[in-house]
Amino acid sequence: MLKVIVCGATGYTGVEIIKLLLKHPEVKIAGMSAKIDKPVKMSDEFPELKGIFDEVVEDKSIQDLLKIDADLVFLALPHTVSMEFAPHFLKKGMKVIDLSADFRLDDLSVYEKSYKHKHSFKEYIGTAVYGLPELYKDKIKKTKLLANPGCFPTASILSLAPLMDKIGQAISDVIIDAKTGVTGAGRKAALAFHFSELSDNMWAYKVGAHQHAPEINQELSKAAKKNITALFVPHLSPMKRGILATVYVSMNKKNDFACADIIKWYKAFYKNAPFVRIYEEGTLPKISGVLNSNFCDIGIAKAGEKIVIISCIDNLLKGAAGQAVQNMNIMCGFKEEAGLL
Amino acid sequence: MLKVIVCGATGYTGVEIIKLLLKHPEVKIAGMSAKIDKPVKMSDEFPELKGIFDEVVEDKSIQDLLKIDADLVFLALPHTVSMEFAPHFLKKGMKVIDLSADFRLDDLSVYEKSYKHKHSFKEYIGTAVYGLPELYKDKIKKTKLLANPGCFPTASILSLAPLMDKIGQAISDVIIDAKTGVTGAGRKAALAFHFSELSDNMWAYKVGAHQHAPEINQELSKAAKKNITALFVPHLSPMKRGILATVYVSMNKKNDFACADIIKWYKAFYKNAPFVRIYEEGTLPKISGVLNSNFCDIGIAKAGEKIVIISCIDNLLKGAAGQAVQNMNIMCGFKEEAGLL
Amino acid sequence: MLKVIVCGATGYTGVEIIKLLLKHPEVKIAGMSAKIDKPVKMSDEFPELKGIFDEVVEDKSIQDLLKIDADLVFLALPHTVSMEFAPHFLKKGMKVIDLSADFRLDDLSVYEKSYKHKHSFKEYIGTAVYGLPELYKDKIKKTKLLANPGCFPTASILSLAPLMDKIGQAISDVIIDAKTGVTGAGRKAALAFHFSELSDNMWAYKVGAHQHAPEINQELSKAAKKNITALFVPHLSPMKRGILATVYVSMNKKNDFACADIIKWYKAFYKNAPFVRIYEEGTLPKISGVLNSNFCDIGIAKAGEKIVIISCIDNLLKGAAGQAVQNMNIMCGFKEEAGLL
Amino acid sequence: MLKVIVCGATGYTGVEIIKLLLKHPEVKIAGMSAKIDKPVKMSDEFPELKGIFDEVVEDKSIQDLLKIDADLVFLALPHTVSMEFAPHFLKKGMKVIDLSADFRLDDLSVYEKSYKHKHSFKEYIGTAVYGLPELYKDKIKKTKLLANPGCFPTASILSLAPLMDKIGQAISDVIIDAKTGVTGAGRKAALAFHFSELSDNMWAYKVGAHQHAPEINQELSKAAKKNITALFVPHLSPMKRGILATVYVSMNKKNDFACADIIKWYKAFYKNAPFVRIYEEGTLPKISGVLNSNFCDIGIAKAGEKIVIISCIDNLLKGAAGQAVQNMNIMCGFKEEAGLL
Repeated sequence: MLKVIVCGATGYTGVEIIKLLLKHPEVKIAGMSAKIDKPVKMSDEFPELKGIFDEVVEDKSIQDLLKIDADLVFLALPHTVSMEFAPHFLKKGMKVIDLSADFRLDDLSVYEKSYKHKHSFKEYIGTAVYGLPELYKDKIKKTKLLANPGCFPTASILSLAPLMDKIGQAISDVIIDAKTGVTGAGRKAALAFHFSELSDNMWAYKVGAHQHAPEINQELSKAAKKNITALFVPHLSPMKRGILATVYVSMNKKNDFACADIIKWYKAFYKNAPFVRIYEEGTLPKISGVLNSNFCDIGIAKAGEKIVIISCIDNLLKGAAGQAVQNMNIMCGFKEEAGLL
Repeated sequence: MLKVIVCGATGYTGVEIIKLLLKHPEVKIAGMSAKIDKPVKMSDEFPELKGIFDEVVEDKSIQDLLKIDADLVFLALPHTVSMEFAPHFLKKGMKVIDLSADFRLDDLSVYEKSYKHKHSFKEYIGTAVYGLPELYKDKIKKTKLLANPGCFPTASILSLAPLMDKIGQAISDVIIDAKTGVTGAGRKAALAFHFSELSDNMWAYKVGAHQHAPEINQELSKAAKKNITALFVPHLSPMKRGILATVYVSMNKKNDFACADIIKWYKAFYKNAPFVRIYEEGTLPKISGVLNSNFCDIGIAKAGEKIVIISCIDNLLKGAAGQAVQNMNIMCGFKEEAGLL
Repeated sequence: MLKVIVCGATGYTGVEIIKLLLKHPEVKIAGMSAKIDKPVKMSDEFPELKGIFDEVVEDKSIQDLLKIDADLVFLALPHTVSMEFAPHFLKKGMKVIDLSADFRLDDLSVYEKSYKHKHSFKEYIGTAVYGLPELYKDKIKKTKLLANPGCFPTASILSLAPLMDKIGQAISDVIIDAKTGVTGAGRKAALAFHFSELSDNMWAYKVGAHQHAPEINQELSKAAKKNITALFVPHLSPMKRGILATVYVSMNKKNDFACADIIKWYKAFYKNAPFVRIYEEGTLPKISGVLNSNFCDIGIAKAGEKIVIISCIDNLLKGAAGQAVQNMNIMCGFKEEAGLL
Repeated sequence: MLKVIVCGATGYTGVEIIKLLLKHPEVKIAGMSAKIDKPVKMSDEFPELKGIFDEVVEDKSIQDLLKIDADLVFLALPHTVSMEFAPHFLKKGMKVIDLSADFRLDDLSVYEKSYKHKHSFKEYIGTAVYGLPELYKDKIKKTKLLANPGCFPTASILSLAPLMDKIGQAISDVIIDAKTGVTGAGRKAALAFHFSELSDNMWAYKVGAHQHAPEINQELSKAAKKNITALFVPHLSPMKRGILATVYVSMNKKNDFACADIIKWYKAFYKNAPFVRIYEEGTLPKISGVLNSNFCDIGIAKAGEKIVIISCIDNLLKGAAGQAVQNMNIMCGFKEEAGLL
């Protein structure tokens, strides 16, 4: 059994990782930590775990965490915090799956501008692998430091990668209009996330300025083999979880590809991806289809010359914890779907 | 025009009072105050007021509030805070409508036990009138210090007063199972009220120990002319606003009253109450029927020998701001419905 | 007092019209009709009207409706049904406000294609005025047949009209990504609108093929004085009411207009529009700001060279009943805001 | 592998059974049927099953169903329909788990009154076992015809059985105030269940007259060894799924049992029940704790002399499909928790 540590166990992502690991046939939870005032039973904080996982979580120092006999650590920590933890585990020889943005961006200056924070461990940037299994499975197999993608980037990049790969040179313009459930903002009290503020409400935020945009552009540009700057606009919606991204693609020449052809490209591109489902022409995915699962559902339509792509994920699973476990499976030689279906 | 001050203007209740006053034909808002860090335009805090009420609210001292030329003040303040403000306005000769619990209870020891706070202005308790217009209209007309009822007590007492009045002596047992929307907890961030925690969820709290219970018992006992101790159990529900109270009444002798007769008693009892609506036999109210209104809708059923009463209000209107304005209308000689229909 | 008939009184739009008229100082409801199996008290169908409006509504024939002494009729009827009613009232000399799409499109062939229905009253198309007061107030004053805009077109056109007016020639591309509450689909049972299907869910539909698109394009083209074909993609969201449209505008030359300048154009364009509110730079509207009101709130951002506009309305008010009453006010010489603030 | 048929596969309960069976280590789905107009792929009707379960379901005759090689059938059919199907499968020697009410009541006259339908297969009533594993595990092991309890009865009976068992003779009065999510009403369109009707709303229905009440009373009476007539009042709440029952128990003599003692009784009573969790004194369950699980969470409080019990289940799992699978496990000698954790 693989021995695993979860840091940040009381966040929405952390507890989701723990729930997945509890059902995983090859893994044992060897330790936990969380930024909390005093130790608490996980099942007191999350009553759904009562009788299933009654372990106590506490705020452990990095020294104490290093004493635990473990093979791999999930860092479900805030941006700028992960980078302080990862090197210690790596030096000990452990595998690290970091769910923050700290090792996702190739260009440190972009990181430092986006997250308004000086990066302290530049030497690791080059060794980290961007953990989107549908694009980088071979690299993921070999890495010790995995940068798990953000939720918006996962939905966005998966919706566009086949198109970038096939006709990236002809694409002139990409707009990503994303709608997200509120767990994407983390498990913390804030008036804006109060039930009575968000119920029957919706709003756009950080228009063209979201910290996930550089991550999206980095990966789209690699896939297209040219510089792509998508316009990314997120919207907070009255849902617990789930992301629906509506993606608009314009081309710099006449777009005479049939929708059916484009769908074929997608199916071919994802033929070995067990968690991506491409919808048939004339049908589009809903968030309900992916809720509580690790799937990314993608539907494609043509409207005039534009290509419109709908991409749905559960932000806490394929957008975070599920993808992290999928990456662990690949890094450790388990079946890619283990514990995820 | 009556000149009015609103203290606590940025709470859910405070802003609701302001919205009602803006549509009121006889009133002018002369001043506001709120416990906030720095002055803010009301329409920045509540964008629905943009262009309608762009005044700035700030944290005014009692001295500054007393300098405002005003006839009446609404204290939409937390329990234990109101009592520090009310006497100053009263001494100046102003009318005071207090929406906290500070002057609702006749018995100071009950207050101090329920709110875990020593009462500093005992001398005012006797002069305050409990502001349930359906029971105390004559006293309300004459008072200068009005204790506006709590939201749960309003729904509960109105649902039971006619029965207590008619057959109080025969009633042996009262259970009030109340379901409330989340605005009842006030406009403040807390993890329990986070959209993702409350959506698709529900829970009971303070079973038999809610601070509103003594207020309910006080008024039921007066109406019954004997001591009544109802069991009050509130539940938080995934709704922005609204209370539905399901009330179970048992009797200490054979209950051979027909449902139709009981409904007649209620209609007679409330014949001069413009904001209480009694449903016909076989029909029961829903929260949607009273949302955004000052109505209390009441339906009655018999189940075996028990009487079951369903009572619905909007917790922010008939349960707080609307009732406060209704009381203002009565205290100031306006039409009782002014600004409320 | 103006005597008014409401046809379609039991739909979401119909009852909203009635609620507005009940508070309107210049209007009296002279008659109602609805496609229902048997007569019903409006307050039984809509308990919030209990004691306020207990009139009975029934399925009246056009002959019976014509016998009512009335000056104006609201047709809150489905597309293709309104056209059968309107001419009768017009011939009698009454004013007609039609909330369906039947008289909105100048080009009959576009109507017949969009609504898959042969238009039986072509002769009236030319005399109808498109009822967007912010664009056509002078024509509205004089018309007897008013085509009240759709909810999506209202949010969309108001968000773009000033831009079309000012720099329409330079605009190359418009995408409208709209999110709507479920009342937009009308008051009828359907599995897709079931609480358990829509809660925590969202989906796009009729991508680039919604019947409101031609209406949007017609008005944008007029405003731009050139042919505009916006891509319109609606999304159903877990909200009772409200529309948030996110509009993306690209230009065919370098866009060096500052956001502040664009906001100035909007403020100037709408300076006489009491129900349009333009947000300051750096702030964007939320649906909560316009809920239960007749306002359209608009915020503008620049993202790279693109202009992003956020437009919010209450789909049942500014998107239907409220705008209809606003048009009635203008047609009848009342204050434009009468009954709407 | 056990070969299983699911009748009613496209209802909320039917599809939930299928999802559980797909993860069950000992079971194979051998056939399906549903009352639908034309055959449909399960993954078209329920997109979450895409790629996981793409089988076609159709409206099969009983003759065709009997031709399938199968060991056990789940009847997720409406009341009064199940009774027409069950005997055929029994005669063939198959095991039958019926999720309707058709075989739950010992007294046929009570059934016929509650469901307003003449029972056509009285001879089977005596052989059916009421499938509450926490009470009847031994009988369940041996039966071929299992009557799976209703959702409200499951939450209600589990909340009271230990008390009935221990002090049933002293109990004078039981009130069950239940709040349910909307999937309890089945997967069918109805205006009352429309998102815009149920959102921010709540109502009581069938006060003291719900068809589940006799089932509750039958089991409470057996447990108490005396006649118990609980007052059962259900409320529809704006939730997809989940039931929270608040149960009020009065006694006919002084109740001097400590809460801690009562909790001990419950823990002892359920010591072999893997899906019942008893909360510690001072804590109460929430619906979120049992959502998407087969658990029944129970918390107990004392309020004066009354005992207040809070019981939570997921209505589609422990209240239907999950309990049916639990019963299958027991009937077939599998581990009771198989496929359910």
